Amino acid sequence: MEVKIIKNILSENELIASDIERILGEKGIFSLEILGSPGSGKTTLIELLLDNFGKKYNFSVIEGDVASSVDSDRLNKYGIQVLQINTENLSSVCHMEAFMVHKALNDLDLDKTDFLIVENIGNLVCPASFRLGCSLRLLVLSVPEGSDKPLKYPLIFKNVDCVVVSKIDLKELAPFDFDGFKEEVNSLNRKAKIFELSVREKIGTQPFLDYISLKVASFKDNV
Amino acid sequence: MEVKIIKNILSENELIASDIERILGEKGIFSLEILGSPGSGKTTLIELLLDNFGKKYNFSVIEGDVASSVDSDRLNKYGIQVLQINTENLSSVCHMEAFMVHKALNDLDLDKTDFLIVENIGNLVCPASFRLGCSLRLLVLSVPEGSDKPLKYPLIFKNVDCVVVSKIDLKELAPFDFDGFKEEVNSLNRKAKIFELSVREKIGTQPFLDYISLKVASFKDNV
Repeated sequence: MEVKIIKNILSENELIASDIERILGEKGIFSLEILGSPGSGKTTLIELLLDNFGKKYNFSVIEGDVASSVDSDRLNKYGIQVLQINTENLSSVCHMEAFMVHKALNDLDLDKTDFLIVENIGNLVCPASFRLGCSLRLLVLSVPEGSDKPLKYPLIFKNVDCVVVSKIDLKELAPFDFDGFKEEVNSLNRKAKIFELSVREKIGTQPFLDYISLKVASFKDNV
Repeated sequence: MEVKIIKNILSENELIASDIERILGEKGIFSLEILGSPGSGKTTLIELLLDNFGKKYNFSVIEGDVASSVDSDRLNKYGIQVLQINTENLSSVCHMEAFMVHKALNDLDLDKTDFLIVENIGNLVCPASFRLGCSLRLLVLSVPEGSDKPLKYPLIFKNVDCVVVSKIDLKELAPFDFDGFKEEVNSLNRKAKIFELSVREKIGTQPFLDYISLKVASFKDNV
């Protein structure tokens, strides 16, 4: 009974996600969903993108959090459209669902957007099952979280296009088995691109930025 | 409708949690639930307890994970009872519920246990709402996750007895506003005890171990 309810929710979510994809496709808006644990560096990665591509693209950001506007406040200095969604009063509190993004699209000026970022709630479990209709799904995993996470949270590693290992400046203090990690991610998801970087120490950011540039260009070329 | 279903689940969970409390109370077993993000250091904290109290108490551990037996494998060297629960095939995949622990109690030799540890799934959202009937609820938050987490995930900070800030050896590289954090936690939860420690660097562990000793002694004195 409960499984059936969940299946219904998922297929309804899938319909709404496809509609988001259609709307954004028609407007030529590239969209990036960012997933990851609490404190993995999702907002910091958004700041990296805004710092580097802020003049090239018109960004809008949808911030998902259980509570507070900490992250949207952090982004206010960029003078872009930022919309905060708090889920604590919604039934699906631990993850974002497509209906939330769909509704948010009405509150954003899409004609002034060509790059939309959706930051999901910090959680490696439920967000994996709810596609939000974005062009690219990116998972951030920070070095201090440990390299064993693909074994423990396989679904989210299966369901993303790209994995960013963040905070690699901490690797001397917090050992991380990069080879074992890549092997494990690739056994779950052969096509996932993996990047290693530190935004704070500006290590390894260029290959990641080049990848995003290419993804945006190839999206814009197809719409 | 959906809210009603969730309320029913919660009140059913509460009944089962109370029964766990009764069973453990009758057997004189102290129980500790450990909550926290993926990679915050929950299993490392269990290792600290086993290393320090392994001769004083007979431990049993229930490990909750979406998938894998990584954590229970880590604890096997201690020669204690470790029971792994994988939730990926259960409907409540992102958190443990009392029925899982209740069932696990049948599979453990409780007569050979006087300290039970339950490690919940790495998640700061849903586990907060599901009491597992343990004597003490402890939240681990690691320094690299950032000190803004009480603002974003208030419920879990409200619903625990004790907060351990872990990995403080990383604080030079990953700044953490300890004063602001404590103020925020205490505004949500006046009675929560807060500890700061690094298990790897053996900093600040003794006050935490003393606190646990006292809690166990006072529990055993009351049953």
